[in-house]
Amino acid sequence: MTQHAARSSDRTEAIKQATLELAREVGYAKLSIEAVAARAGVGKHTIYRRWPSKGALFLDALLSTNAPVFEYPNTGDVEADLRAQIHAAIDLLGRPPFGPLYRALLGEAQHDPAIAAALNERFITPQAERTVARLKIAQEQGQLAAGFDLDLAEAILSGAFYFRFLVTQEPLTDDYVDRVYEGLFAGMRPRP
Amino acid sequence: MTQHAARSSDRTEAIKQATLELAREVGYAKLSIEAVAARAGVGKHTIYRRWPSKGALFLDALLSTNAPVFEYPNTGDVEADLRAQIHAAIDLLGRPPFGPLYRALLGEAQHDPAIAAALNERFITPQAERTVARLKIAQEQGQLAAGFDLDLAEAILSGAFYFRFLVTQEPLTDDYVDRVYEGLFAGMRPRP
Repeated sequence: MTQHAARSSDRTEAIKQATLELAREVGYAKLSIEAVAARAGVGKHTIYRRWPSKGALFLDALLSTNAPVFEYPNTGDVEADLRAQIHAAIDLLGRPPFGPLYRALLGEAQHDPAIAAALNERFITPQAERTVARLKIAQEQGQLAAGFDLDLAEAILSGAFYFRFLVTQEPLTDDYVDRVYEGLFAGMRPRP
Repeated sequence: MTQHAARSSDRTEAIKQATLELAREVGYAKLSIEAVAARAGVGKHTIYRRWPSKGALFLDALLSTNAPVFEYPNTGDVEADLRAQIHAAIDLLGRPPFGPLYRALLGEAQHDPAIAAALNERFITPQAERTVARLKIAQEQGQLAAGFDLDLAEAILSGAFYFRFLVTQEPLTDDYVDRVYEGLFAGMRPRP
């Protein structure tokens, strides 16, 4: 890396760091590019050269600094492995300090299609692919019903998380997601 | 009703109507109280006297004018009745003109707890209660597994809808929700 590139990279990191610090202090709604620039010791134009909007800067700061990657264990017990993963996700995504910021990012995604697209590309889709890959192993080992649509299973499991997180806004608990997983495994049809 | 009350009620309706018209024309992000006041022929103070924020006005306009109530048929076939209800909900909530406005309202609910609380009280919770009531009849008739947690079933079914609507933002189709319902009825465990 050249000295210039190194300085530029340091500046980028300082801007993202200032964005997260300020977002935690004042919340996303009151976050301003002016305040980020002042905290990071750069001019506003330096920020706007790289990020087209406050939402874009916030998304980048949130996803690159925290780099939330939830890998699945493979103990051979798919239900236990899914639960372990979702408990880790709840610990990070569903609670302060990251939780309220992640909720604000999803709020922004309802108004700005570019934010929605970037969030899906950088986080939602890769995470969904990890889930489906773990489910596929389980299905091949006979632990899941043959022919069950795994993309659908992923949407149902994620959906229960996001319904509580974004819509009812009740606290996300390990108990809630454990019951969701158990319900989807068992199914609603009467058992003979 | 006195003449004064009638005039006040007409004015309230005119303001809500102007809010929805303008939101459809310019989108929620660009909606302004000034423009609503001008369209409705009232002063800004008249609006602020009744609604504390743009979000509060928008929520009231959206929920009272469209009054989305999705009743469940009871044909005796609970899977068919659930599907009929969700297809009606998709037609209204998931597509223009109402869909983008409903998505904007949910976006606002991520930043404003008062909006989230009012949305749950006026729409999400009553609708969830209708779903659970229909499921309860089915369970009593032996069409659902005894002991299956019906609040949980409701959260799983709603969650799959909102995951696509708010997170992946893929089009909501009858086929998608039909597959979700079928998956939850069948369950993921291997069948003997």
